[in-house]
Amino acid sequence: MAEAKVLSGAGLRGQVAGQTALSTVGKEGAGLTYRGYDVRELAEHAQFEEVAYLLFQGELPTREQLNDYLNRLMPLRDLPQSLKEVLERIPAQAHPMDVMRTGVSMLGNLEPERSFEQQQAVSDRLLAALPAIMCYWYRFSHQGVRINCMTDEPSIAGHFLKLLHGKAPNELHRKVMNVSLILYAEHEFNASTFTARVCASTLSDMYSCITGAIGSLRGPLHGGANEAAMEMIQRFKSPQEAIEGTLGMLERKDKIMGFGHAVYKDSDPRNEVIKIWSKKLSQEVGDTVLFPVSEAIDHTMWEQKKLFPNADFYHASAYHFMGIPTKLFTPIFVCSRVTGWASHVFEQRVNNRIIRPSAEYTGVEQRPYVPLEQRSA
Amino acid sequence: MAEAKVLSGAGLRGQVAGQTALSTVGKEGAGLTYRGYDVRELAEHAQFEEVAYLLFQGELPTREQLNDYLNRLMPLRDLPQSLKEVLERIPAQAHPMDVMRTGVSMLGNLEPERSFEQQQAVSDRLLAALPAIMCYWYRFSHQGVRINCMTDEPSIAGHFLKLLHGKAPNELHRKVMNVSLILYAEHEFNASTFTARVCASTLSDMYSCITGAIGSLRGPLHGGANEAAMEMIQRFKSPQEAIEGTLGMLERKDKIMGFGHAVYKDSDPRNEVIKIWSKKLSQEVGDTVLFPVSEAIDHTMWEQKKLFPNADFYHASAYHFMGIPTKLFTPIFVCSRVTGWASHVFEQRVNNRIIRPSAEYTGVEQRPYVPLEQRSA
Repeated sequence: MAEAKVLSGAGLRGQVAGQTALSTVGKEGAGLTYRGYDVRELAEHAQFEEVAYLLFQGELPTREQLNDYLNRLMPLRDLPQSLKEVLERIPAQAHPMDVMRTGVSMLGNLEPERSFEQQQAVSDRLLAALPAIMCYWYRFSHQGVRINCMTDEPSIAGHFLKLLHGKAPNELHRKVMNVSLILYAEHEFNASTFTARVCASTLSDMYSCITGAIGSLRGPLHGGANEAAMEMIQRFKSPQEAIEGTLGMLERKDKIMGFGHAVYKDSDPRNEVIKIWSKKLSQEVGDTVLFPVSEAIDHTMWEQKKLFPNADFYHASAYHFMGIPTKLFTPIFVCSRVTGWASHVFEQRVNNRIIRPSAEYTGVEQRPYVPLEQRSA
Repeated sequence: MAEAKVLSGAGLRGQVAGQTALSTVGKEGAGLTYRGYDVRELAEHAQFEEVAYLLFQGELPTREQLNDYLNRLMPLRDLPQSLKEVLERIPAQAHPMDVMRTGVSMLGNLEPERSFEQQQAVSDRLLAALPAIMCYWYRFSHQGVRINCMTDEPSIAGHFLKLLHGKAPNELHRKVMNVSLILYAEHEFNASTFTARVCASTLSDMYSCITGAIGSLRGPLHGGANEAAMEMIQRFKSPQEAIEGTLGMLERKDKIMGFGHAVYKDSDPRNEVIKIWSKKLSQEVGDTVLFPVSEAIDHTMWEQKKLFPNADFYHASAYHFMGIPTKLFTPIFVCSRVTGWASHVFEQRVNNRIIRPSAEYTGVEQRPYVPLEQRSA
């Protein structure tokens, strides 16, 4: 074996593990770009399906291409009967990310990716079907309802909200969910995306890659920060309480979720977008607590620690104002990020070498075997 | 963001991505060691459950500890009824690795790892239940039989063979399966293990880590080499045909599975072990084709290319002689490697930093958004 190079620091931080043309994160003056476009511009003007198309294809679609794409996605929303039967067997108290992971894995048995020529079709299928995987399980296990997984909502954002609530959402909610799906779509070599690329590097199938990515996103150091932020925000009944509570947490060195970022140093470009929409939703519902509490925590964190809210922090209140149960926050992330994950799988397949790093051995020296009867405790 | 270091070569080859005390691979004069013990000695003297204990706990068990461990594993073999119902919904033509991935993922919904204190219990559960996940699905989908997932076989090796064949295996088969499970148990930072560690680094649960690892092992560049070797070996009716066929494949530069290794340079220590057992099985069944054909390919590859058989090559004939369907070869690998994967998850959790490498950006420069109606194809 060639002499292994010991890298500074754990976790491969700052080490280039491959190439991507999909996004830049934290590049000076650019914040976050997808295929060269500032995510803030995309979130303001585009619809999520345009961004999905952009990530997959490399260019924004024309009107005709977008219409074709929307027409291709819509009939892919329903789930096979046996997948529904699997979801019905998952208890209400299950972790919703375990449900997403299992739903995708099961779909891979029923509609396998037989060759890489099907990669776009499989990715479209997952993009279209994930809201139903989430909502079918949620509404069956929590409300005893077998929902119809097809809706007439033209956008994935509207479709998801209609599946969840059983009625058409209003325009503001459609818009905010659309913005949210855009903001979460892609983020370079984060841990879940890297999981998908390691899996892809063995030339495994798309379902395996996405299943693995969901499993990594499930971890509390990765996805789930918006859920944790929500739980924290809900503990406070007023901005004053929030300030005192935040100071207390800082003093106790508690981990405060939704602030700071491993890559961004000054601000998270996604935060400014979702914060505006959260405020609009707050006004729409006549909220006088949740948004002011969020702002109070935000200001306190900045004053005390110069820590800025990341994409997750105001997502918490925004989702809440749209009536989304907290436990579904991370699964929504999956419905969005599947576009980035799948695009990374495409890239890995084009220029692949199996990802197989080395390890530094820290174990015992070689030793002779001791027969069972001669061992002592 | 700190300036990223560009590494030579893709796939993180030769780059240290973390520490392990579990195994050494290809260390001079040592071949493959688990916790300091030569895998050849373990395969000769130990039983698989001893090796599982060794990997998990760091030391070989005493007789009493081993008995306790066997008694703990035996009652964990059966599957929950709803997992059986899920497996019944997976069609016979599904990829068996998709079945394993889905079975593990589903079990994670039913018996979640609620805290890391449960990691050993969850790992034991998976180790004990994986043979049933594989065999329940296989025999239901292929033979229409709902098997009893409990057997009185004391070892996992014997238990698996009895579940598969519906009758007790003979001593030779128990021994060879036991050897095989030992040989495949652990192999440092290969792609599936690295997948498990990336997932573990987000502090996700054990089921997510193992599900992701199965997805990576599914890839034809990783697991599955023994299946591909079997398909090749079975094409030849005599050693002479095999020699000619191998020369033809070499001339056409076809990929010949089961030879060479990314890390081992001169030989795979696992090969010498399984080759001997494959020969014994060949004699037992009165085979006059498969083993001689395998040897003919082996000799031709060495003469022509100085390429040696790896662990997978003689595993193909060995499994075949025991009546194991080719499509189950890689799932058996899962039943064994789950011990290595889980042990790596334990390690990652003890000294964790989220694995989040950087990427080299090769995409387009930042560009202004173009409104939908102004785009042209």
